[in-house]
Amino acid sequence: MSDIKKVVLAYSGGLDTSVIVKWLQESYGCEVVTFTADLGQGEEVEPARAKAQAMGIKEIYIEDVREEFVRDYVFPMFRANTIYEGEYLLGTSIARPLIAKRLVEIAEETGADAISHGATGKGNDQVRFELGAYALTPGIEVIAPWREWDLTSRETLMAYAEKHNIPVDFSKAGKKSPYSMDANLLHISYEGGILEDPWAEPEEDMWRWSVSPEAAPDQPTYIELTYEKGDIVAIDGEPLKAHEVLEKLNKLGGANGVGRLDIVENRYVGMKSRGAYETPGGTIMMRAHRAIESITLDREVAHLKDSLMPKYAELIYNGYWWSPERKMLQTMIDESQDVVNGVVRVKLYKGNVTVVGRKSDDTLFDDRIATFEDDAGAYDQKDAAGFIKLNALRLRIAANKGRRLK
Amino acid sequence: MSDIKKVVLAYSGGLDTSVIVKWLQESYGCEVVTFTADLGQGEEVEPARAKAQAMGIKEIYIEDVREEFVRDYVFPMFRANTIYEGEYLLGTSIARPLIAKRLVEIAEETGADAISHGATGKGNDQVRFELGAYALTPGIEVIAPWREWDLTSRETLMAYAEKHNIPVDFSKAGKKSPYSMDANLLHISYEGGILEDPWAEPEEDMWRWSVSPEAAPDQPTYIELTYEKGDIVAIDGEPLKAHEVLEKLNKLGGANGVGRLDIVENRYVGMKSRGAYETPGGTIMMRAHRAIESITLDREVAHLKDSLMPKYAELIYNGYWWSPERKMLQTMIDESQDVVNGVVRVKLYKGNVTVVGRKSDDTLFDDRIATFEDDAGAYDQKDAAGFIKLNALRLRIAANKGRRLK
Amino acid sequence: MSDIKKVVLAYSGGLDTSVIVKWLQESYGCEVVTFTADLGQGEEVEPARAKAQAMGIKEIYIEDVREEFVRDYVFPMFRANTIYEGEYLLGTSIARPLIAKRLVEIAEETGADAISHGATGKGNDQVRFELGAYALTPGIEVIAPWREWDLTSRETLMAYAEKHNIPVDFSKAGKKSPYSMDANLLHISYEGGILEDPWAEPEEDMWRWSVSPEAAPDQPTYIELTYEKGDIVAIDGEPLKAHEVLEKLNKLGGANGVGRLDIVENRYVGMKSRGAYETPGGTIMMRAHRAIESITLDREVAHLKDSLMPKYAELIYNGYWWSPERKMLQTMIDESQDVVNGVVRVKLYKGNVTVVGRKSDDTLFDDRIATFEDDAGAYDQKDAAGFIKLNALRLRIAANKGRRLK
Amino acid sequence: MSDIKKVVLAYSGGLDTSVIVKWLQESYGCEVVTFTADLGQGEEVEPARAKAQAMGIKEIYIEDVREEFVRDYVFPMFRANTIYEGEYLLGTSIARPLIAKRLVEIAEETGADAISHGATGKGNDQVRFELGAYALTPGIEVIAPWREWDLTSRETLMAYAEKHNIPVDFSKAGKKSPYSMDANLLHISYEGGILEDPWAEPEEDMWRWSVSPEAAPDQPTYIELTYEKGDIVAIDGEPLKAHEVLEKLNKLGGANGVGRLDIVENRYVGMKSRGAYETPGGTIMMRAHRAIESITLDREVAHLKDSLMPKYAELIYNGYWWSPERKMLQTMIDESQDVVNGVVRVKLYKGNVTVVGRKSDDTLFDDRIATFEDDAGAYDQKDAAGFIKLNALRLRIAANKGRRLK
Repeated sequence: MSDIKKVVLAYSGGLDTSVIVKWLQESYGCEVVTFTADLGQGEEVEPARAKAQAMGIKEIYIEDVREEFVRDYVFPMFRANTIYEGEYLLGTSIARPLIAKRLVEIAEETGADAISHGATGKGNDQVRFELGAYALTPGIEVIAPWREWDLTSRETLMAYAEKHNIPVDFSKAGKKSPYSMDANLLHISYEGGILEDPWAEPEEDMWRWSVSPEAAPDQPTYIELTYEKGDIVAIDGEPLKAHEVLEKLNKLGGANGVGRLDIVENRYVGMKSRGAYETPGGTIMMRAHRAIESITLDREVAHLKDSLMPKYAELIYNGYWWSPERKMLQTMIDESQDVVNGVVRVKLYKGNVTVVGRKSDDTLFDDRIATFEDDAGAYDQKDAAGFIKLNALRLRIAANKGRRLK
Repeated sequence: MSDIKKVVLAYSGGLDTSVIVKWLQESYGCEVVTFTADLGQGEEVEPARAKAQAMGIKEIYIEDVREEFVRDYVFPMFRANTIYEGEYLLGTSIARPLIAKRLVEIAEETGADAISHGATGKGNDQVRFELGAYALTPGIEVIAPWREWDLTSRETLMAYAEKHNIPVDFSKAGKKSPYSMDANLLHISYEGGILEDPWAEPEEDMWRWSVSPEAAPDQPTYIELTYEKGDIVAIDGEPLKAHEVLEKLNKLGGANGVGRLDIVENRYVGMKSRGAYETPGGTIMMRAHRAIESITLDREVAHLKDSLMPKYAELIYNGYWWSPERKMLQTMIDESQDVVNGVVRVKLYKGNVTVVGRKSDDTLFDDRIATFEDDAGAYDQKDAAGFIKLNALRLRIAANKGRRLK
Repeated sequence: MSDIKKVVLAYSGGLDTSVIVKWLQESYGCEVVTFTADLGQGEEVEPARAKAQAMGIKEIYIEDVREEFVRDYVFPMFRANTIYEGEYLLGTSIARPLIAKRLVEIAEETGADAISHGATGKGNDQVRFELGAYALTPGIEVIAPWREWDLTSRETLMAYAEKHNIPVDFSKAGKKSPYSMDANLLHISYEGGILEDPWAEPEEDMWRWSVSPEAAPDQPTYIELTYEKGDIVAIDGEPLKAHEVLEKLNKLGGANGVGRLDIVENRYVGMKSRGAYETPGGTIMMRAHRAIESITLDREVAHLKDSLMPKYAELIYNGYWWSPERKMLQTMIDESQDVVNGVVRVKLYKGNVTVVGRKSDDTLFDDRIATFEDDAGAYDQKDAAGFIKLNALRLRIAANKGRRLK
Repeated sequence: MSDIKKVVLAYSGGLDTSVIVKWLQESYGCEVVTFTADLGQGEEVEPARAKAQAMGIKEIYIEDVREEFVRDYVFPMFRANTIYEGEYLLGTSIARPLIAKRLVEIAEETGADAISHGATGKGNDQVRFELGAYALTPGIEVIAPWREWDLTSRETLMAYAEKHNIPVDFSKAGKKSPYSMDANLLHISYEGGILEDPWAEPEEDMWRWSVSPEAAPDQPTYIELTYEKGDIVAIDGEPLKAHEVLEKLNKLGGANGVGRLDIVENRYVGMKSRGAYETPGGTIMMRAHRAIESITLDREVAHLKDSLMPKYAELIYNGYWWSPERKMLQTMIDESQDVVNGVVRVKLYKGNVTVVGRKSDDTLFDDRIATFEDDAGAYDQKDAAGFIKLNALRLRIAANKGRRLK
C-alpha cells in the first residue's frame, strides 16, 4: 500500500463503512477521519459518533448540511427542469458533489492526504465522489476499498466485521433490506434484490417514503408554491428555507402517493441498471417549476433551456458538477431565472400532481392577444399571411425544383 | 378577390366551416370542394355530406384516415418520445400535415387552384396547414377566411349563417361549449372560455374523454404492450392495427382517469396561450415507449435522441412536418428503432401510468454485470480507477494551474 | 398613410436614403430626423449634414460609433468564434443592432413616433433593423419605404430624385458600382451584378479593401496579438482601443491579401443569395482567437461553445441580437472568457493567416504530460486501459447480444 | 502474462512495431500475425514482408486498402464538413477504424485471440484501435505494449532491438526525424520535438507533403470538382475512384502550398497536445464541399448538419466510429446528400483555396428571387412586414411588460 498517513472517510455509521474504517486502519496503517453528513436521509447521524469513537477515531465530523444541500445543489438543478433519460430526477447524483467538497475540505483542515468512500466499483457514485475530489484538490489520493479489497461478498464482509469486533447493529442487520438504498432530502433509492429482473414489479413493502396511490387519501390536497428567481420560497404563503420547502413537499407528496419511479437507466460506467426511486417533493417541484416558467419565460429562452437540459442532466449524472462546463451552463440557467417569479397552485391526489393555476407579476401571458375575442388591434391577423409565406419560401423553391418530401 | 376558380376546403360539417363554404362561394365566386376526414375525433363524418350537398357542393370527399393518421404520423412521432415544452404531446399539431397533404392531393385530382381552412389568424393551425400545402404544392393558393373576412365575432358569424340559410344544428348551437375544441384519435383540446385566465382551474364538466382520477375505478388495470421497431403492435397479446391500438388505449386510459393536461404554451406566432388536453392513449404510449427503449437502446443513441427531441418537437409544433429537416431527423429516429422490440407491462390507476415491467429479446440489460453479487469476471472493478483518473485529468490540470470551481 | 408626425431615418447621405428623406416628407407629411453613423465604413459622414440641411432637416445626428461598435458588438461576437454557415463572419449582421438601438433612442430623445431605413424587402437587414427596434421600443412604428413605394427600379428612383432636386453626387452616380455594397469596420460586402451567377468569379476590380494574394508583398508580416478575457487589447505590444485594433488589423490584413470570401448563403427571408466579402481584420481575429483559446480553455468548455456557436451565429444573422436568448448565450460565452488571456503570434502572407505561436500565463498546456518522454509520474499510462475498457463496455455488451455495426 | 496463443499486430515494418513483434513473442510466448496496410502513407509496404519473415512470422497480411479507406471512411466524414475544434480535419482519427476492423477480421480468420498495436498510453490512437476492436469483437483481448513494457525511452528500445537482432534500417535510424509522425492518404501529422513548445514555429524542413506558400508557383491553378451525392467523382471532368481523387488533390494542393495546419488540440485522454498537419487534398475538399452544399442544400438541413457536426467530429476523434450513435448520425448525414450534386470551381494559389464558382442541376439558388431587379412577382416584399411583425411579437410583449435587453 502507498504511504498514506491520514484519510477522510465518508462515514454513514452503517456496517459497510464501519468495516472500511477498520480495513483502512489495518491495510494502510493510517489514521482515519470520519465525515458523517445529515443530508436529510431520515436517519440520526449522531450515533455515528459513538461508533467511530469505539474504533479509535479521533477526528469526527458530523454535520447538518441539509440547507446547503437543497439551496446550493438541489434548487440550482431544478432551475433547469433537469431529468436524466426522460424520467430520473437525479436524487443520488446531486448529493455527491457536496460530500466530495466536504471530504477534500476536511482533508485540508486535518492535514489528510487521502479521502475514501464506500461506493462500489460498478456504480456511478465512485465516479461522482472522485471526479469532484480531483477537480477541487488535484493532488488528493483516493482510496476506494470496494475496488481494492477481497471482501466481495456479504459473507466475507460479515466475517471481517465479526473478527474485528465492529459494532454491527445486529437487530438491524437481521432485518437487512434486500435492497441497496440511498437517501437524502431529495429522494430514497432502491437497487438490487428482485429489481434485478426488469420484468418484476417492486413489492409494495419496498417503498418507504410514500404511501401507494391506492392507500392515499380520497380527498385532494391543494397547495400554493411561491417562486422567486426560480426557487420556491414559500408554501401556502409561509416563507420557508430551502430545505424546509423540500421537507414539507416530501411530507405532502408522500402522503398523497406522489413520486414513485421505477426505471432502467444507463450508468456512466457502461451498463444498464434497474432502480426504483421515491422523490415526492422533487416530483412536485418539477411540475410546478415548468408551470411558473410557462408564463414568465420567453419562448426561445425556454426552448434553449430545453435543448441544453439533457446535456446538463448528463453532466450531473456522470459526476461533473465540479467542472467548468457545468458551471458555464449554470451561469446561463441562473441568468434566465431572474423573471421566474410568481405562484403556482398544485393539486395532489393519489399519485397525481396537477398544476391547476399559475400567476405572476412577471407574466408574459397576455390575454388580450391570445383571446378568441376581439383584441382591439393588439395583433393584426393579416401579418400571419406574410409570416407563413416567407417561412414557406425555401420549401416552395425546393418543391418548384422538383424536390419530393413524401 | 383573385381569380380563383375552384377551392378545396377542410370541412368539418360544423357551423364555422359551413359559413366558410358560403363565404367562399359568395366572395370568390368559385366552386368549392369539401374534404371531411375521420381522424377519430369521435363524431360522425357522414352527416357532412348532406350539409355540403345542401349548399350546392358537387365534389365531396369524406374519408376515414384513422389508420393512416396513426401509422404514418402519430407512431413515427412517438418513436422520438416527442414532447413540446416538457408537457404537450402535440395532439393537434400531428393531425395537420395529413390534412394539408390530402387537401393539395384533392386539389390536384379536382383541378382546384386553391385550398382553404377554418383556422384563425392567431393560431398555429393556419401555419401548419399552409406550410404543408406550400411545401407539397408550391403553386397552390391559400384562402384563410378568418384572416380576410369581417365576421370577427360570434354574433356576426351567426347572423351571416342565418342570412344565408346555412343548416346550423340549432340544438347543438344552443348548448355551444364555451371552449374552442379540436379532436382526433390522439387527443381532444380545449382553449378559450375561463381557460384564458391561467390561474383558473378547468371545470370538471369541460373534460370529455376521461373520467377524473377521483371518479376512476378503485382497482388498477394492468396491460401488456408489445413493441416492434418502436411501435405498439399488440395489446395483451392481441395484434392490432395502429389506429386500433390508440383507440383501445384511449378507452383504457380514459376509463382510468389518465391523460389530462393543463398548460400554458408558446405559439409559433408569438404569444402564449392556455390549453387543456386529454391524451389518454398517448400518455400511456409515451411512458411505455421510454420503458421499452430503456432496455433496448444503447445509452448514447438514447441520449442523442433526447438531445434532438426538443428540435423535432418544435418542428412538428411549428408546422414543418413536410420539410427536409423533419424528414432528415425522422430517418435517424427510425434507424434507431430497429431494436426497440419487446413487451412493456403498465399499470393504470386513477390517473397514474406506472411501468411495472419490461422485457425484450433485444435487451441490453445484463444482470450479470449490473448485479451487486459476483459477476464471474464480466466486469473488472479495477478498470473504474483508470476510467476516473483519465476523465479527471483535464480537471486536475486546471486545478493545478489554480483554476477555481467554487 | 398613418398619422406619423416624426420619423428617425438611418441616413447614409447617399442617393437612396436621400430619396427616402424626400419621400417620407411627401408621403407621410412628417418631420424627418436623420441619423448618420460612422461605423468605420471608410467614407466621410460629415457631408451628410449639408445634404440633410438642404432637404430641410432640422434634427441631424451624426455620430462616430466606431469604438462602441467594435467593443460592444464585434468583440463579443468573436468571443464565440462565430461563423455563419461555415464561412461568413457576419460583418453586416453585427452592425445592425447598434443602428437599431440608436434609432429608437433618438426617437425617444426627439419625440419621434417612427423609424425608417433604406433596406429592401428581400434582404435580411430589414429584419435586423426592425426586430431590434421592436424589441427595444415595442410601440415604435417602422416605415420601410422599399416595401411600400413604387420606386422599384433604378430609373424611377433617379427620376424621382431629379424631380425633387435631390442633391445627387452625379460624378459619383456616373461611376456607380454594379454591386450593392455595405461597409463597416468589420467588413465590406458586395451583392448583385455578375455575382448573381454563382458560377461567375468576381472581377478583380470589385474588391476594395484588400490587394489580391497575387499582388501582396513577397515577404510575410509577423504580428503578436495580446488577449485579455477573449479580446485583443494590444498589437505588437502596443495597447489599442477596440476599434483601433480592428483598424490596424484591417490595414495589415488588407495589405497581405487576407480576408476575401465568396459564398452563397441562406437568407432568413427564405432565399439563397451570393455575396462577396472582405473581412481582413476579422479573418485574422478568428484564427487568433481560436489559437489563444486552444491553450487556455478547458476541453469541454470549448466543445460546448462549439456546439452552441451555430445557434448563436444564426441568432445574429437573423436579427435577434436584441433578444433574451442571445443575451443568455452571451452570458455563458463571456463567462468562459475570463481565462482567455495571452499572446498569439500570427504570420500574414499572400492571403494566408497562419498561427505560429501561442503563450499564456493561463495555459492548460502541460508539456510534462503531453510529452513523449518520461513525465515523472504525472500520468500513469496504465489508467488508459481502464478508461478504454469502461468506455467500451456498452459497445461490448451490445456486440455480445449480436448487434452489428458494419 | 495471460494465456494468449496468437495475436494480430498492426505492423508498420518500422523499428517500434518490429520491437513489438519480438516482445510479444518473448513476453507472451505467442504466435504473431502481422497486418500491414497501405493507406497511402507514401511508403512501400512490401518491405514489411521480409522483415516479418526474418522474425519468424508465418501469417503475414499486406493489403492495399486505399480505395476502401477513402470511399468508406474519408468521404463519409467529409459529407458532414467535419472539423474537430474548429481546425483539425481528423486525418489520423479516420484511419484507425479501418485498421481496427481488419485486425479483428484477421483475428477471426487466423484464429487469433488477441490484437496488438504500437500506440502509446498517452494518445488517442490506443483508444480508437481498442474501442473499435471491442465494438466489433467484444471478446477480443488487446495487448498494448507501450502500456505494459519497460522500454519507455528511445535508448532502452534501441538496446532491445540490438539485443534481439531486429533488422533496423540504420541508415534511416540515423537521420531519425525528431517528430513522431503518422501518415495516410488524408494527411501526415507531426508531434513532439520542438512542437512541444506551443510558442515555437515549426521549422520549414519539417513539412514533407507540401511546399511552403512562399515556394509555391506564382501562377494559380484552377480545378473543377464534380460531386455526386456529396462525394467527388471527377476532377476536371475525368472520372476517378475515391482514392484517386484524394491522391490527385494531394498532389495539386501540396504543389500550391495548401493544407498546412499547426494547432493545440484536446486529446480524449485528457491533455492538450500540439500537432502539425499537412492535409492538402482534404483542405480543398472541405471548402469545395461546403460550396456545393451552399447551392443544393436546404437552409434548415444545412443548419441542422452544422449543429450536429461538432458531436460527429468528437465521436470520430474519440474513437467511436464503430458505435451505434455514429452510425445513426451517418444515416442522417447521408440522407441529406442525395441532392448534393454539381460542380465546384476552385482556385489554388500559394496556400489559398478559393471557391470561384459552383453550379448544379439541383441548385436551389433562384436568381429571379434573390435579384435586386424586378422578379415578376416571385416574391412579395410586403410579406416581409408580416414576417417581421410576428417574429417580433414575443419580443414586443416582453418589452411592454418592462423586460430590458440592454
